[in-house]
Amino acid sequence: MGRRLSIMLATACLLAILGSDARFSCLAQSRTLAERLGYPADAKLLIVHGDDLGMTHSINAATTKAFATGLVNSGSIMVPCPWLLEIATYSRSNPQADLGLHLTLTSEWKNYRWGPVMPKDKVSSLLDDTGYLYLSESEAASRATVAEVESEIRSQIERARKLGIQPTHLDSHMGTLYQNKELFEMFLRVARENKLPVRLSKDMFGRLSFLPSIMQPTDVAIDQIVSIDQSVAGDGWVKYYTDALKALTPGVTEFVIHLAYDDEEMKAVTVEHPNWGAAWRQRDFDFFTSETFRSLLAENKIKLITWRDIQKAQYPQ
Amino acid sequence: MGRRLSIMLATACLLAILGSDARFSCLAQSRTLAERLGYPADAKLLIVHGDDLGMTHSINAATTKAFATGLVNSGSIMVPCPWLLEIATYSRSNPQADLGLHLTLTSEWKNYRWGPVMPKDKVSSLLDDTGYLYLSESEAASRATVAEVESEIRSQIERARKLGIQPTHLDSHMGTLYQNKELFEMFLRVARENKLPVRLSKDMFGRLSFLPSIMQPTDVAIDQIVSIDQSVAGDGWVKYYTDALKALTPGVTEFVIHLAYDDEEMKAVTVEHPNWGAAWRQRDFDFFTSETFRSLLAENKIKLITWRDIQKAQYPQ
Repeated sequence: MGRRLSIMLATACLLAILGSDARFSCLAQSRTLAERLGYPADAKLLIVHGDDLGMTHSINAATTKAFATGLVNSGSIMVPCPWLLEIATYSRSNPQADLGLHLTLTSEWKNYRWGPVMPKDKVSSLLDDTGYLYLSESEAASRATVAEVESEIRSQIERARKLGIQPTHLDSHMGTLYQNKELFEMFLRVARENKLPVRLSKDMFGRLSFLPSIMQPTDVAIDQIVSIDQSVAGDGWVKYYTDALKALTPGVTEFVIHLAYDDEEMKAVTVEHPNWGAAWRQRDFDFFTSETFRSLLAENKIKLITWRDIQKAQYPQ
Repeated sequence: MGRRLSIMLATACLLAILGSDARFSCLAQSRTLAERLGYPADAKLLIVHGDDLGMTHSINAATTKAFATGLVNSGSIMVPCPWLLEIATYSRSNPQADLGLHLTLTSEWKNYRWGPVMPKDKVSSLLDDTGYLYLSESEAASRATVAEVESEIRSQIERARKLGIQPTHLDSHMGTLYQNKELFEMFLRVARENKLPVRLSKDMFGRLSFLPSIMQPTDVAIDQIVSIDQSVAGDGWVKYYTDALKALTPGVTEFVIHLAYDDEEMKAVTVEHPNWGAAWRQRDFDFFTSETFRSLLAENKIKLITWRDIQKAQYPQ
């Protein structure tokens, strides 16, 4: 642990001890996240999180319908996308909804793309020669300057707040901000300033070797993230999620899912791209709004929590 | 007629006479547009034109499906809109398609809006406080500076061409560029430089009193524009268009129509706005792809022409 970090930790302890809420003293770091959230250490806690809100009407419609079941209880919004205003309207009408920002630096579909929130001439390193955000996260991470990415993500947070969205957490579309140390360090810094938890899990530590050197004691990592991928065939969907729920370990898990309808709009957006395509998203919708899923939660004693709960623990008032 | 205009006209005559195509000499101005297009003066010529391409997938899908029937034979594209790339792909694959640009300075829907092609900080007079283009054409025309509108429409033309669209004509979404003399004069100037005809008809002369003072002899005005409006009830659609076709007078007429499907995407875009809404556009699609329409064209001896035909007459090679 570096000298600067030791001083910060000591300062944080002192401030916490002097503060009114003793639960969040420096001792808190030795407690599990589940305990800090008020649950026993062996509780199985789950966030069921729909990504990509704001990208299409189909995603907004399916995800907010899933929210109404109570079985999907969190989501994050892509501020630069065409359907932002629809989900902003929903957010203002449903202030209890657990909505974060899916910070967006890529524009990955063939026929349906978007640009930045910042004026294009101020963030030219974020754009390909079409004037849209890059198609891939690797292209974005290797070509965009950290300073311009910082301006853009700050603008996305600012625009969301201006529209009445009060985000409870931050994550990164296609993981662009997790691609290298410089981007992730800046991302954490912006998140801390905004008092917002970041999608970060202990199972990332192995593959993101830079994490230990930039995390601070007040940063929160959940225990694991579960996200289906293209290795699962369409008819294996229910088994994959059922197995994951039955095998869920104690601690905080986030299921990162992608809800939409397999309709004309979504088919056209994801044309030639079955991974995370329209049928894929319909399958996620069908499972996570099903009575099968509801029963699995009960049978396996899994409790749903939200990013707002984590935000309150990480940044107590 | 001003001195400058006289000199230009004389020069145009001279150039035309020296040119290879004697049909387009200065004498052409005394011939009707129908005659200049190679038809008898009493021919009934019609352009069936779908507006708003690029705005939604539903519009792109319905309008290009209507193109395939041959009964709708022209359309124009909104460059700043989310579905631009889909219609650009169509345009590259169908270079014979008669596609113009529906120059866009407004963003009129509640939950689905767009910004300019230019960097926002270079055209701030075009944006409302949300950072999108204005909701209404009157707001856009009264607040936007002519210089910034000119930059933006030049950027829209440039972006379209960069994507492989070779526009055959120009018009203006919601008629913003027709709102005052300064805007329209600039619009005509940009159109002439780009050798593109503009949506302009003799029946506009009465309500746009500034037109005679800014038109030049080489500018082309068609004879009339027919566009259904909210005074027609949904069940009056077929009668309205049938009557218009039966009453069609000789000369060049443009039917300005709006095609889309009454689907979830289009319903969500046009939410709380039945005029030019999803059902409205489905009715246009149903009529203009029907055998009824095909028969009415034949029975009334109406020939379909395109803006490309007019472009060739107005700007002969």
